[in-house]
Amino acid sequence: MRDVAIIGAGMTPFGELWGSSLRDLFVDAALEALRDAGIDHLDAIYVGNMSGGQFVGQEHLGPLMADHLGMAGVPSTRVESACASGGAALRAAFFEVASGASDFVLASGVEKMNDGADVTAVLATAADQENEVYHGVTFPGLYALIARAHMQTHGTTLEDLAAVAVKNHAHGALNPKAQFRQKVTTEQVMASSMVADPLRLLHCSPVSDGAAAVVLCPLDRAKELSKHPVKIRGSGMASSAMALADRRDPAHLDAVNLAGNRAYQMARLGPRDIHVAEVHDCFAIAELCVIEALCFTERGSAGAATRAGETALGGRIPINTSGGLKSKGHPVGATGVAQVIEIVEQLRGEAGERQVRNAAIGLTQNMGGSGASSVVHIFERV
Amino acid sequence: MRDVAIIGAGMTPFGELWGSSLRDLFVDAALEALRDAGIDHLDAIYVGNMSGGQFVGQEHLGPLMADHLGMAGVPSTRVESACASGGAALRAAFFEVASGASDFVLASGVEKMNDGADVTAVLATAADQENEVYHGVTFPGLYALIARAHMQTHGTTLEDLAAVAVKNHAHGALNPKAQFRQKVTTEQVMASSMVADPLRLLHCSPVSDGAAAVVLCPLDRAKELSKHPVKIRGSGMASSAMALADRRDPAHLDAVNLAGNRAYQMARLGPRDIHVAEVHDCFAIAELCVIEALCFTERGSAGAATRAGETALGGRIPINTSGGLKSKGHPVGATGVAQVIEIVEQLRGEAGERQVRNAAIGLTQNMGGSGASSVVHIFERV
Repeated sequence: MRDVAIIGAGMTPFGELWGSSLRDLFVDAALEALRDAGIDHLDAIYVGNMSGGQFVGQEHLGPLMADHLGMAGVPSTRVESACASGGAALRAAFFEVASGASDFVLASGVEKMNDGADVTAVLATAADQENEVYHGVTFPGLYALIARAHMQTHGTTLEDLAAVAVKNHAHGALNPKAQFRQKVTTEQVMASSMVADPLRLLHCSPVSDGAAAVVLCPLDRAKELSKHPVKIRGSGMASSAMALADRRDPAHLDAVNLAGNRAYQMARLGPRDIHVAEVHDCFAIAELCVIEALCFTERGSAGAATRAGETALGGRIPINTSGGLKSKGHPVGATGVAQVIEIVEQLRGEAGERQVRNAAIGLTQNMGGSGASSVVHIFERV
Repeated sequence: MRDVAIIGAGMTPFGELWGSSLRDLFVDAALEALRDAGIDHLDAIYVGNMSGGQFVGQEHLGPLMADHLGMAGVPSTRVESACASGGAALRAAFFEVASGASDFVLASGVEKMNDGADVTAVLATAADQENEVYHGVTFPGLYALIARAHMQTHGTTLEDLAAVAVKNHAHGALNPKAQFRQKVTTEQVMASSMVADPLRLLHCSPVSDGAAAVVLCPLDRAKELSKHPVKIRGSGMASSAMALADRRDPAHLDAVNLAGNRAYQMARLGPRDIHVAEVHDCFAIAELCVIEALCFTERGSAGAATRAGETALGGRIPINTSGGLKSKGHPVGATGVAQVIEIVEQLRGEAGERQVRNAAIGLTQNMGGSGASSVVHIFERV
């Protein structure tokens, strides 16, 4: 396999972007990534997107996006793994460059969720239609079950859950691209509207529009073209039982653990080597389960570690310095690529007020559904 | 890049399969492919699918299918390029094996179209929503425009169009997996119901359920494991302007031409080297445009070549010996992989009554929308 690096990154702000269509969002992010990379040619494009079909009546995003970027002709493929679509798109682009088939490949993600579709119902199509959705469950409901299981098994508290939201909003307040740039207090989280007991509004990521894109190329070309290439050292992906009820321990995200171990193995690194990570906090409980599954904390101790500030900027292992899905926003198909952009900025030393000092190795973890799919990547400053 | 081969193939019959769900169809095809390959382990799965979300309310097919195959844990990703989803899934699997990241990868496609969705409206989401669909056009309408353009520019006749359907039904009558196993006459085609002038019912592929899967591995392993491995010699993909109105010549499928040239170049072969091909005859006019774009005939002469029997079994270059989309059926996400299965059977010499004598090199061409995306693969008997 050839070594692969990222030489360009671009993203739209995340939020309720009424003035931009799905294709506008993609083009804005892709042009910013191309400008950042200093190139005007692509060999291939991957578009991570969960459900253009259901959200805005548009499938076949590959050629549509290539065309509107002014690059009709370029092979362009949509990749979907629900909310892990962006991570899966990066992984597909990584393989294409690593194989030697292509040199310059754009990995992107885009979603337009605010155009009138019944968002909760569309998102539910990422769960098991026959064994879960048919019976009325939604994602807030599934993650509430995960939260209850974690509380019961590990003694995790409502204060632990609130601490995730408080931390990520504090980070997001420093991110100009974030959907919600205000801090929140533990009291505000605990008093926000109940969504699915024990999860309240401020435990949940929002409904968002947005796009993100990165340019990949072989590492040797990257060193010629870029002042600060970021090498992809590891890529791991895994699946799990689709339905939550089919998993031995709903509070243990085995696909995340497996994907993480595969990425660590490829990178020849372990959790203690990671300086900064972006993980999939679609709900506050998800971040706690994920950082345990990635072995950043002991099983059952993620809540205490979060309350102790270990995962905040300045802490032992800063998690979601971008604000995470909670504060930055969660346009589902774009999220996995936006996570990569935060890590690229951190490793370049360009994260401004959110900068983690001396960050040289970073990790992203992107997740689909209630954890049935997960993609983990590990990056290194070259 | 490592050389890659196919060592196993499996597919369901195509048709109105009321007794099987989307996941059932996938599992049936995947198990047949694994049995055929003689393996019980996979490193990754790719699932080609156009619109599980709109057809049956199910996105996130990657982990769902891995789980129901009894392989939870295995990385599994959905790939979508409308009706070219199957071809795009094969290409992604090809890159993953070629890169050296994985050894045994399943490339599959599945679609369940007969479960109650408004099929024409769902399929239309593969066209340009803002510039085409909003104005009321459907795919029969778009291909009718292509047919009119071809007739006007090249003098193609209604008899030429009918000859495609007559040939493909004659082939499909020999295929036990085909949805329509009866021959049709020119008169029957010309007298069938008008769908979108000049396209009549028997010019159009049907609405189908079905799944198909192939197992890929490195060529050196394939030679140990299989009596008759089929090497993937070339893979080409391209996009085009999404909206038909944005193309210089609607009757020339430039993405097909570009994808074909890329595949020929990788394979170091030309159109005269191909012994048998499966191409995307979603409508009769599509087959004529495609075989011209792939340079199997001169531009404008595909109709005459078809009427002369050049593309029939026993002819100069047999096209769609499986019956094609027209007679075999067209479960859109599965089609690209089913095309590969026909070529694998031909190159193995296992195509029975449909066998092309001494077939050693074959080609598949899969297409999305009105030709905005296309994937071409070239295969060789080892």
